[in-house]
Amino acid sequence: MDSSDISGNVHLSDAQRIDWLRLIRSDHVGPLTFRSLLKHFGSARTALERLPDLARRGGASRPGRICGEQEAEAEFEACKKLGVSLLAPGEAGYPPRLSVLDDAPPLLAVRGATDVLMRPVIAIVGSRNASGAGLKFAGTLAHDLSDAGFVIASGLARGIDQAAHRASLSGGTVAVLAGGHDRIYPPEHEDLLAGILQAGGAAISEMPLGHAPRARDFPRRNRLISGVALGVVVVEAAHRSGSLITARIAAEQGREVFAVPGSPLDPRAAGTNDLIKQGATLTTCAADVINAVEPIMGRPIELGEPDGEPPAHDPDASDRTRITGLLGPSPIGLDDLIRMAGTSPAIVRTVLLELELAGRLERHGGGLVSLI
Amino acid sequence: MDSSDISGNVHLSDAQRIDWLRLIRSDHVGPLTFRSLLKHFGSARTALERLPDLARRGGASRPGRICGEQEAEAEFEACKKLGVSLLAPGEAGYPPRLSVLDDAPPLLAVRGATDVLMRPVIAIVGSRNASGAGLKFAGTLAHDLSDAGFVIASGLARGIDQAAHRASLSGGTVAVLAGGHDRIYPPEHEDLLAGILQAGGAAISEMPLGHAPRARDFPRRNRLISGVALGVVVVEAAHRSGSLITARIAAEQGREVFAVPGSPLDPRAAGTNDLIKQGATLTTCAADVINAVEPIMGRPIELGEPDGEPPAHDPDASDRTRITGLLGPSPIGLDDLIRMAGTSPAIVRTVLLELELAGRLERHGGGLVSLI
Repeated sequence: MDSSDISGNVHLSDAQRIDWLRLIRSDHVGPLTFRSLLKHFGSARTALERLPDLARRGGASRPGRICGEQEAEAEFEACKKLGVSLLAPGEAGYPPRLSVLDDAPPLLAVRGATDVLMRPVIAIVGSRNASGAGLKFAGTLAHDLSDAGFVIASGLARGIDQAAHRASLSGGTVAVLAGGHDRIYPPEHEDLLAGILQAGGAAISEMPLGHAPRARDFPRRNRLISGVALGVVVVEAAHRSGSLITARIAAEQGREVFAVPGSPLDPRAAGTNDLIKQGATLTTCAADVINAVEPIMGRPIELGEPDGEPPAHDPDASDRTRITGLLGPSPIGLDDLIRMAGTSPAIVRTVLLELELAGRLERHGGGLVSLI
Repeated sequence: MDSSDISGNVHLSDAQRIDWLRLIRSDHVGPLTFRSLLKHFGSARTALERLPDLARRGGASRPGRICGEQEAEAEFEACKKLGVSLLAPGEAGYPPRLSVLDDAPPLLAVRGATDVLMRPVIAIVGSRNASGAGLKFAGTLAHDLSDAGFVIASGLARGIDQAAHRASLSGGTVAVLAGGHDRIYPPEHEDLLAGILQAGGAAISEMPLGHAPRARDFPRRNRLISGVALGVVVVEAAHRSGSLITARIAAEQGREVFAVPGSPLDPRAAGTNDLIKQGATLTTCAADVINAVEPIMGRPIELGEPDGEPPAHDPDASDRTRITGLLGPSPIGLDDLIRMAGTSPAIVRTVLLELELAGRLERHGGGLVSLI
């Protein structure tokens, strides 16, 4: 994934796409690990061949499941039937701002019009049990931003999400799903999704077909909502609501965070008022959003920090013992770990990759890792 | 008015107080001119003697009215009967933070308990036609700040002012009046005022007894509301409301400005949301105010910039012609004027003083002056 990724010039061959799909659907391989493996071995095919060996070195008692070729081909065909493309970062239709994130999905399942995903996107999120005023405001804001040329992304949920999608149908709107494309949540929003697709919008997911969304999939999904967007507007959010997770992730991704104020006596404004206290832009109209993102739109999309070089040699047993010994259940920063390990960053990263594939390592935000 | 002013160590003699009262009640003498005259002539008595001459030199067709001794004594006695003290900056009971402002009233008419005026004050202001939620929030905030040891200042108006006063009666609250102490506005709030005084609070005014407040007196009064306070909280305010004037003046005075957010669909929150966009602190609870003003309370109160020295000699006719010629109906900065005049700052200030006393000069904010 070099700088050509974001120009829409990447194109995987069918065989490559099947390899990528097998790798990302294998046990213990998330987007970050996928990226490390690709960097380390140069291709998904080689990585697949080496997975069992790496996991064994990392101390796996039994090897994780590797997605077979037939299984991947079956998913690929099922996607085709549903009109879903599996796109790699840098391919046309893969949202450019999402493609440069460290944890960008290696293959994004895209249904509907891919061109909307290449245009500037604003995400609008908020409470499922929104007030009438909140729903009305979300609709007005989505409509005005849509009129100004922005694509509106949201999570297809009840409440604010629904109001934002509905008000931006004609300008193009993107539903970001927590489950597979054939497992719409909530089920009664299948009509809304059909309307979005018919009007020239799109739906995206990183999950396989047949995957019914679980509670933990929603925070994970939320990084995609902010990831595709220039900025995220939180319309109504109580304390500790899911929309605040989206706002936090958005800030970590360097996205603009906007929040709509409300009365201190309205619990549905508690979260948004807090966001403003913490630095989010107070938003009462589309101009507040447009003024803040316009300067960003003019700038080239920045790539994430590149990974280090692959190691000159494999880690030996003493490297593994030393580095694993430095890890524990408390998260530690990768930089600290590299300093304490007294060996090359590439060796440390390789040992971490082995541990991860053995299902023994957990990666947290901000480059922190811990043993499971 | 030197640094001892703010320590409560100043005390005027009866004769001095009468002279000060005569001077500030004379035509064309506002707080700024009063201050210049006192600096220039050393005492109010000397200034009173020189007023007609200065005004004539400034080009007055007929001399402005000078308040006579009997008139001043009558006001002084009437004040006593009503329990009103006329206090100079630096005297005990004169709010310390107000005393260091350039345009602090030379004599502040104080009724009620003077000790509350020496304690840390927070002003709470807002719409007269406030919503139920706004009134409730103003009450809660005033109560909580009062509990935390702050005195609450407001303007005795209907709506937010009234709610703030009522909720802080027991902790001490200050009504800042736009008219004389015997001309309460609105008249139906005489009971509220009586309650404030009975509970150990105070009322202050810079206007003479018998002065019924006119529309233009309210913006002038608003500088006292913010002037006595560490910070001003605006609870509900529509676009272009009087509370926003108070907020602007507060910012100019270096006061903290707090604003309570509201829904973008609520016109009564339009002004407060705008204030937050412009940098006011979003406020949903007393802690937001306390956290912001606590560091300020620890610092000594800063004096305004000292005036320059009085001139070594009076301006001559050519000084007057040159300086008056540089002035026009468009406001010009004092610094620019001094630079262009090619003479000493003291001479320029004296000519301006003469023009002012002749009723020919208008002083604007930010050191700007223009000919009338």
